Amino acid sequence: MASERQHSPGMSRRALLGRTAAAAAGATALTATTAGPAAAATTRDVDVAIVGGGLAGLTAARDLVAAGRTVAVLEARGRVGGRVVNLPLAGGGVTEGGGEFIGPTQDRIKALADSLGVATFATYNTGKNLLYKDGKKTPYATDGLLGSVPPVDVAGLANAAIVQASLDDMAKQVPVDAPWTAAKAAEWDKQTFESWLNANAVVPSAKFLLDVACTSIFSAEPRELSLLFVLFYIAAAGNESTPGTLERLTETAGGAQELRFVGGSQLVPQKLAATLGDRVVLNAPVRTITRSGGRYAVTADGVTVTARRVVVAVPPPLAARITYDPLLPAARDQLTQRLPMASVGKAIAIYDTPFWRADGLNGQVVSDTGVISSTFDNSPPDASYGALMGFIEADEARKLDAAGEAEVRAAVLKDYVTYFGEKAASPTSFVLQRWNNEAYTRGGPVSIAAPGVLTQYGPALREPVGGIHWAGTETSVHWMGFMDGAVRSGERVAKEVLAAL
Amino acid sequence: MASERQHSPGMSRRALLGRTAAAAAGATALTATTAGPAAAATTRDVDVAIVGGGLAGLTAARDLVAAGRTVAVLEARGRVGGRVVNLPLAGGGVTEGGGEFIGPTQDRIKALADSLGVATFATYNTGKNLLYKDGKKTPYATDGLLGSVPPVDVAGLANAAIVQASLDDMAKQVPVDAPWTAAKAAEWDKQTFESWLNANAVVPSAKFLLDVACTSIFSAEPRELSLLFVLFYIAAAGNESTPGTLERLTETAGGAQELRFVGGSQLVPQKLAATLGDRVVLNAPVRTITRSGGRYAVTADGVTVTARRVVVAVPPPLAARITYDPLLPAARDQLTQRLPMASVGKAIAIYDTPFWRADGLNGQVVSDTGVISSTFDNSPPDASYGALMGFIEADEARKLDAAGEAEVRAAVLKDYVTYFGEKAASPTSFVLQRWNNEAYTRGGPVSIAAPGVLTQYGPALREPVGGIHWAGTETSVHWMGFMDGAVRSGERVAKEVLAAL
Repeated sequence: MASERQHSPGMSRRALLGRTAAAAAGATALTATTAGPAAAATTRDVDVAIVGGGLAGLTAARDLVAAGRTVAVLEARGRVGGRVVNLPLAGGGVTEGGGEFIGPTQDRIKALADSLGVATFATYNTGKNLLYKDGKKTPYATDGLLGSVPPVDVAGLANAAIVQASLDDMAKQVPVDAPWTAAKAAEWDKQTFESWLNANAVVPSAKFLLDVACTSIFSAEPRELSLLFVLFYIAAAGNESTPGTLERLTETAGGAQELRFVGGSQLVPQKLAATLGDRVVLNAPVRTITRSGGRYAVTADGVTVTARRVVVAVPPPLAARITYDPLLPAARDQLTQRLPMASVGKAIAIYDTPFWRADGLNGQVVSDTGVISSTFDNSPPDASYGALMGFIEADEARKLDAAGEAEVRAAVLKDYVTYFGEKAASPTSFVLQRWNNEAYTRGGPVSIAAPGVLTQYGPALREPVGGIHWAGTETSVHWMGFMDGAVRSGERVAKEVLAAL
Repeated sequence: MASERQHSPGMSRRALLGRTAAAAAGATALTATTAGPAAAATTRDVDVAIVGGGLAGLTAARDLVAAGRTVAVLEARGRVGGRVVNLPLAGGGVTEGGGEFIGPTQDRIKALADSLGVATFATYNTGKNLLYKDGKKTPYATDGLLGSVPPVDVAGLANAAIVQASLDDMAKQVPVDAPWTAAKAAEWDKQTFESWLNANAVVPSAKFLLDVACTSIFSAEPRELSLLFVLFYIAAAGNESTPGTLERLTETAGGAQELRFVGGSQLVPQKLAATLGDRVVLNAPVRTITRSGGRYAVTADGVTVTARRVVVAVPPPLAARITYDPLLPAARDQLTQRLPMASVGKAIAIYDTPFWRADGLNGQVVSDTGVISSTFDNSPPDASYGALMGFIEADEARKLDAAGEAEVRAAVLKDYVTYFGEKAASPTSFVLQRWNNEAYTRGGPVSIAAPGVLTQYGPALREPVGGIHWAGTETSVHWMGFMDGAVRSGERVAKEVLAAL
């Protein structure tokens, strides 16, 4: 097989990258210690092999290099950034197919972007939100007494407020670094979020608000999630000094959707990767991690890296697909069988202008129907064109997984017309990013936990296995599931590895 | 890498097996169409490549060969049988480390065993069961008014009877071939079995009985399971003419633990494999399944099989670890992220005699404490020695995953002494099988489903993807999780493939 692969165009490019990379990055050696004479794969010898060139892996690489260590980052795709990606537009410019927003207390992604000269701008939030419910459109101000809570009936608003306060209160009792040690962890990890909502969000319109919050935050339905996992996720929506709240997860101004990056979020990993030069090897999906004596051989298609330590910075269900020798402990393996990716897509329609602004709308919709139940104005800061971005989430994403792009486009535009009128029917271009169908993500935005997972397997999330360390946003104690969590995990794992080297 | 692998002792044996196998089994050709000149891996060309040499894969192979098709079965381990294994005893003879029992309505495993000349004998069931609860031992007859329900307080027995009847009634409303179409599927798939039990098994001793039943049946805690999945599993504990019941899952006489195989259960897959000769390739873990034109290349360590159709007959979380090209549809991939293996081990202590029989005990315990809460008399039919077998299940299995064998042995024997007295402290030998730590199972006995999985992903369990078909006990509509389900899945998939070829 080796010689066959070698002759494919993808392989040639990969091998080439591998060689020039090693030479330019000052890796300690280009040897062929693990490959036999017939194998043409490149081999590199470094201090730390890093699996995954998303924000977590790249951040870890940055810190390790800064500490004088040699690294190689093996990235499966032909690009860096993982779940953060800029997509080119037909008319020029880019839009964002993955993580794009940052907000208050997301200090580490902000610091990283600052250090790379990537500026932020405010997510468009001028004008009214739109509630679409029971076939009726209701614009509403986002700076009223209720903040940006959609104006459902008074009983529903009252119920939702109590539910929200309860969730925040419970979340405060969850230690972000060990949710399984919460006094009520066992009780909260026995039930689905749906079961808890059924008992607490008893007014239908309140249940609607919480359901929309759930799918918007997790791209999963309440029945798929452990209550404890939801509480942990809320608790993690803050930093070392500011506890997380549900509101910070859902809000635009003052919340996790407050800011965007000028030039698109992928500029951050791209610029970070540029500082690492040829230490980053693209098109190198890792297949095996093998310990031999005190060292590891990390074998990707076309390149093997030998190292003293390994950082695995890919989502847990993908980490499970690497072959480890020796075997991982059962706790770690079974954990990775139990953290599936949620289901998400993004649909971005481009128009000559952000025409909804003239109607007094900010482009943000909350809907009880349709393929898209949550939208944002994704236009560039200069509004040189208009962009409507909608999330395709949870059940809606899964229903459309096997549909052709034309079918998805038609369904999305139908929703956009419902929300914003006939002008929405004719975008100048249309971009679709379907994370469930991506080989090196297979869902998104983040792993989710059903009941029983955190209490039984939580400690295996970050505990190193020999010289193998775990990173990725799923391992972060703050902003798990966000770009900020990915950066934090990279910083944490670099410290962990440096202490061990 | 190919040449490196070739030089390992394991590899030489494997390659040799591959070659002789192809020659002897009349495979259509020994070609090297997919391997380049430098790759030394064996290549076989057959009608159907089968991944996994457990009962499912071997049964499929048998039926395909009987229909005149060529097959190759690629088995990762150095033995056939998958989750069915005979373990050698120090004093000679074998005991069983995996699936061992069969019972009424398990027609297909029975027919297979009959066809291979493997006889059955009754699981030892003479004398009294033992309830160990609140530190007290209570022997009880298994043929009383309550069958073998442990004698807890009357309120608990009454409550448990109602709960059992409710579960059976609900299970009758679950179509085994499509549980997600049950009228109440959405309601039942929103909640954990634990949530349902908390609302229905309100008497503590009833909850105890149901908890023990749950861990005994699933090797999982009630919080880990969707109520719908539990109902499906009960419904599946029957055949085409006899609906499943909870009692049939839990009983010895008249239930799924009624009979055992003379010589050990692995004799069935061993004898079946013998009829297939060198069509079965051992030590061949499959890494990639690649479609090219109308054919598939199935690549294992050391051997590549090309075929028109592929049967994947391994548990879903392991099927997820194969690299598929083209990618699997999202529905199938996300399903395999959501069917983790439960957690189980078996501990078998061997004694000179089955001494508990003289005390009027049948060796079957139900306990509310200890590492082992469920035991069986696993002595051979001639009682030439005594064997006490205990299941280490769910939380108890996970607690011991990282423990050394001596520690596990000590904990198990402590329980056996508690239940059966001091004689249990000194077995002549002790055998431990820990499925969570097995590379090619990573848990057991079977995949489990949390809330939301069956309703959203169920149809992907059996739906072929192009020329790739799915088998294994997890895909069976009767006796899912049992040897019988594995055999049924092999028979079903062979029909499916033959219709498509």
